[in-house]
Amino acid sequence: MPTDHIMKTYDDELKRLNNAIIRMGGLAESQVAASIQATVKRDSELAHEVVEQDAQVDALEAEVEALAMRLLALRQPMARDLREIVSSLKIASDLERICDYAANVAKRSIALNQAPVAKPVYAIPRMGKLAQALIKDVLDAYVQGDADKAMHVWLSDEELDELYTSLFRELLTYMMEDPRSITAGTHLLFMAKNIERIGDHATNIAETIYYLIHGTPLKEARPKRDRSSTSVVLPGPVAVATTDSEETK
Amino acid sequence: MPTDHIMKTYDDELKRLNNAIIRMGGLAESQVAASIQATVKRDSELAHEVVEQDAQVDALEAEVEALAMRLLALRQPMARDLREIVSSLKIASDLERICDYAANVAKRSIALNQAPVAKPVYAIPRMGKLAQALIKDVLDAYVQGDADKAMHVWLSDEELDELYTSLFRELLTYMMEDPRSITAGTHLLFMAKNIERIGDHATNIAETIYYLIHGTPLKEARPKRDRSSTSVVLPGPVAVATTDSEETK
Repeated sequence: MPTDHIMKTYDDELKRLNNAIIRMGGLAESQVAASIQATVKRDSELAHEVVEQDAQVDALEAEVEALAMRLLALRQPMARDLREIVSSLKIASDLERICDYAANVAKRSIALNQAPVAKPVYAIPRMGKLAQALIKDVLDAYVQGDADKAMHVWLSDEELDELYTSLFRELLTYMMEDPRSITAGTHLLFMAKNIERIGDHATNIAETIYYLIHGTPLKEARPKRDRSSTSVVLPGPVAVATTDSEETK
Repeated sequence: MPTDHIMKTYDDELKRLNNAIIRMGGLAESQVAASIQATVKRDSELAHEVVEQDAQVDALEAEVEALAMRLLALRQPMARDLREIVSSLKIASDLERICDYAANVAKRSIALNQAPVAKPVYAIPRMGKLAQALIKDVLDAYVQGDADKAMHVWLSDEELDELYTSLFRELLTYMMEDPRSITAGTHLLFMAKNIERIGDHATNIAETIYYLIHGTPLKEARPKRDRSSTSVVLPGPVAVATTDSEETK
């Protein structure tokens, strides 16, 4: 029957869209892992590979967009299907940003390799591991259509924010103690910020999954423990002041 | 006639969506301007206002999303109308990020006000002015449906990238000369990065406008002159090394 055929094609197309998202997610996981690995092992070759792989991510995002537009134009989807398609656009955009941040971490690791090992680099794999777990869990939530799991990711990002804020202060103190470490310290600051932002994008995806499943946007404001924007670290005997205001979401 | 009535409502709804984007754009312009003003005048009160206004931007983005989903579900738009609606989702997301960056600049200006004036702050209004011009021009391109104007914005962002890279190096040297300036220098680094990112989002919007008008995505890679990720600044007699690789888009 032609109707059946049409339905089957429609389902196939939705599945293709889903698969493209899952492939992008897998790539995001491996790009983040490789960028951290490159930093820890001081492996500039691996770092270059991460930077080069980024084009593949952009191509996948373009594929998602083309598929989604096709489905919207030809299938005139409603309700859950419509949310599925619009959500795929949002998730693809977040995954693309995650990969951009991974590529930037990789790029900065190459700059770091031109200087002696900077002690605070030890914190990067800790942050990286947390970020990777957030991406993995949010992708599981997407595949399983599990809004509770997505909410768990949404709440877990707080830990990454806290790690970032404490590393931010440590790096400031580190640079003050030895001005020769300022270039390395600055790259580490931005690398840490990139990883913190990867966590933010994982929580964006969690919010999208919540909306996809429940059909209403998540209203609550997410708890934010990154206070680095208002941190003041003074030189000399360590003095740290932080105002109470929270990072803007 | 009922058909006319339906058409009229549809047009009204598209117009409402358009207006919401234009309002968001206006808010983005004024938030960026106010955050720069707060930094230059060391006006913490104004900075707090910028941070508080951010909730309004989030509300406007939610309004755009709700309107767009409604149009997609009820009107089953095709071709240009469909692109118009999907583009509004993308543009709203970029405008929301621009406002986040403005709020973060404002927040960091409050931290800066706790220390003496940091000399390199002079570069912030220069970067801010450029970023504001990019937002203004890309919004004009949107309102006028002018793809050439959008492409002009897309190319102009290069200047902002160059300003950012040179400020990045200046700030590193500044912090090396006086470790007491490291906290202020770090906040300025992130403020400059935020403004550079605002430019990137203006170019994203330019790309969306190109797609909205031409119906095909822009294929070229944008020239990128931000080389800060690979910059190495050594202490002592100023030595600057920059590899040739370009910032990841």
